[in-house]
Amino acid sequence: MTLQALLGIELPIIQAPMAGVQGSALAIAVCNAGGLGSLPCAMLGPDALRQELEALRAGTARPFNVNFFCHAQPAPSAEREAAWRAALQPFFNEFGLDAAAVAAGPARLPFGPEAAAVLAEFEPAVVSFHFGLPSPELLACVRRWGGKVLSSATTVDEARWLEAQGVDAIIAQGLEAGGHRGMFLTDDLQTQMGTFALVPQIVKAVNVPVVAAGGIADAAGVAAALALGAAGVQVGTAYLLCPEATTSALHRAALKSAAARVTALTNLYTGRPARGIVNRLMRQLGPMRAGAPAFPLAASAVAPLRAAAEKRGSDGFSPLWAGQNVAGCAEVAAAVLTRSLMAELSATPAPDGEPR
Amino acid sequence: MTLQALLGIELPIIQAPMAGVQGSALAIAVCNAGGLGSLPCAMLGPDALRQELEALRAGTARPFNVNFFCHAQPAPSAEREAAWRAALQPFFNEFGLDAAAVAAGPARLPFGPEAAAVLAEFEPAVVSFHFGLPSPELLACVRRWGGKVLSSATTVDEARWLEAQGVDAIIAQGLEAGGHRGMFLTDDLQTQMGTFALVPQIVKAVNVPVVAAGGIADAAGVAAALALGAAGVQVGTAYLLCPEATTSALHRAALKSAAARVTALTNLYTGRPARGIVNRLMRQLGPMRAGAPAFPLAASAVAPLRAAAEKRGSDGFSPLWAGQNVAGCAEVAAAVLTRSLMAELSATPAPDGEPR
Repeated sequence: MTLQALLGIELPIIQAPMAGVQGSALAIAVCNAGGLGSLPCAMLGPDALRQELEALRAGTARPFNVNFFCHAQPAPSAEREAAWRAALQPFFNEFGLDAAAVAAGPARLPFGPEAAAVLAEFEPAVVSFHFGLPSPELLACVRRWGGKVLSSATTVDEARWLEAQGVDAIIAQGLEAGGHRGMFLTDDLQTQMGTFALVPQIVKAVNVPVVAAGGIADAAGVAAALALGAAGVQVGTAYLLCPEATTSALHRAALKSAAARVTALTNLYTGRPARGIVNRLMRQLGPMRAGAPAFPLAASAVAPLRAAAEKRGSDGFSPLWAGQNVAGCAEVAAAVLTRSLMAELSATPAPDGEPR
Repeated sequence: MTLQALLGIELPIIQAPMAGVQGSALAIAVCNAGGLGSLPCAMLGPDALRQELEALRAGTARPFNVNFFCHAQPAPSAEREAAWRAALQPFFNEFGLDAAAVAAGPARLPFGPEAAAVLAEFEPAVVSFHFGLPSPELLACVRRWGGKVLSSATTVDEARWLEAQGVDAIIAQGLEAGGHRGMFLTDDLQTQMGTFALVPQIVKAVNVPVVAAGGIADAAGVAAALALGAAGVQVGTAYLLCPEATTSALHRAALKSAAARVTALTNLYTGRPARGIVNRLMRQLGPMRAGAPAFPLAASAVAPLRAAAEKRGSDGFSPLWAGQNVAGCAEVAAAVLTRSLMAELSATPAPDGEPR
């Protein structure tokens, strides 16, 4: 079955869910253009989630995707938190902030029964997960209304595991991708492969449709991904400058600058490796720091620094999530961008005459 | 101009030069199959170089490529060498070897006047370089007989620099690639991109043909690289099991094992980051070590450990160079492999009816 038939969409294009830089508006625009728009839900409480789902339902009659994290919540470690704050203390001093006044705690919650109950009111066609899958009980909730389940694999082993759990399609997340690595069976970054290596190996290993992600920025990239055996693509970074995204002005400026050429995986902003444009915090502490609190606890202490720096017009403490290929970023409507990703394919029918 | 016309070859396929695992035999087989075979010359003295060039001339009437490193030779540092030997001392003890008895010194020499003089006797059609380019005077030697000059770029900046120096084509070496990173304007690994991100950005930045390298293992990979705008591909890892390669039995076994799924960049074997299958030395010392002697000096002290371990049947101290996609490795004649890389394209004519 094609990805389009599986998900009820016109184009084999998924707009990557990107928490913090987009909400329902971007998803709606992509859905109405024929792709699968995605709502990132990791940072939405039940009320905000319901509001966004209502907006989606009002904005499009087409299928959409809601995306959740499904990490295990870590036990907070006072020792690790203290070491983390000590590392950040010079910055707190610089901004005249009191590190002790900052409340610790998670800003990102894993998918749970409460969110599942809200979803059940809306029965979204597609639910995607990052960092593995939730419990079988929670997955069963989604299955109850016939929701298709997607998740990300960063290794062949993860793809095989997801297939064994019955996912409907697998997103092969190459190392080029912006934002959080979806890795869940390993935390060894050496296992993480570029899209060119990962996609064909996952395609060979599983029978479900594989969606290529990481470094795909334009129609040529989509064509290349399909040539590698992908059933579709997931594109995130290219949408970051669209007017429907909520990308901050500082983040937009960084994406348009030469700085965007150098990204790195960093765990400083949340505790898990995620790709973003290298900025001051990453340079000064080193992008990967073994002592950072476990995901998502690292975020709390950085938040006030980010706020203070942004007030001064500095992006030095903001997560500037971006993939390794910002060439596709354009200040155009998301519908235009979505359609442009398929431009080459519609102009070039496959040998059998069927649209690919 | 197509890559084929530029280099005088039939297929847009370059067999990647791989020092230590192949000589003229593999290059000849690829040339005679219509690709561009490559002779890695970094570890050949003038006599060995002449012998191999004679073999190539006898074995094929087609154009071939000779590949050289062009690093600056570092000043040896007694302090760094001593620290390096101290780190290796436990292994010397384990194998009953005397670290003090090991001669320090380079095993890999940069392209120089002596090699240029040997080349002039043979006038190879193509000369490719790794780690930048040699001096303008040395390049002029190659130009004198009309040799085409290629070099590798790992960033957009490096590609632009190479174009400004007048190279005839640029190899865009994605992070998936096995062996040494060709990086020369930076030693910051954060700048290194996956093939999917690197190739289109370099294609956009320069006007010379771009050859995609890294993670390309089969006909689908070749088709994908061409879709990204590459004029051709460079394939290395897939050739490692061919009978014409001199890949050691231990290296072959590792490539066929599950271990090949996890590669890493390591500077332990030479002093520069190169991708290989993770093995014991890499695990025990960490694959990247700031204190390792500068390229190529790190190699000397590891050599006796490698020899002793291999005698015991262990690959734990051998550089097991490989890219992130070993799916294309097959024990087939190099000619068969070369032809198979183009299978899909010859079966699928481009829309204008011309072979791509």
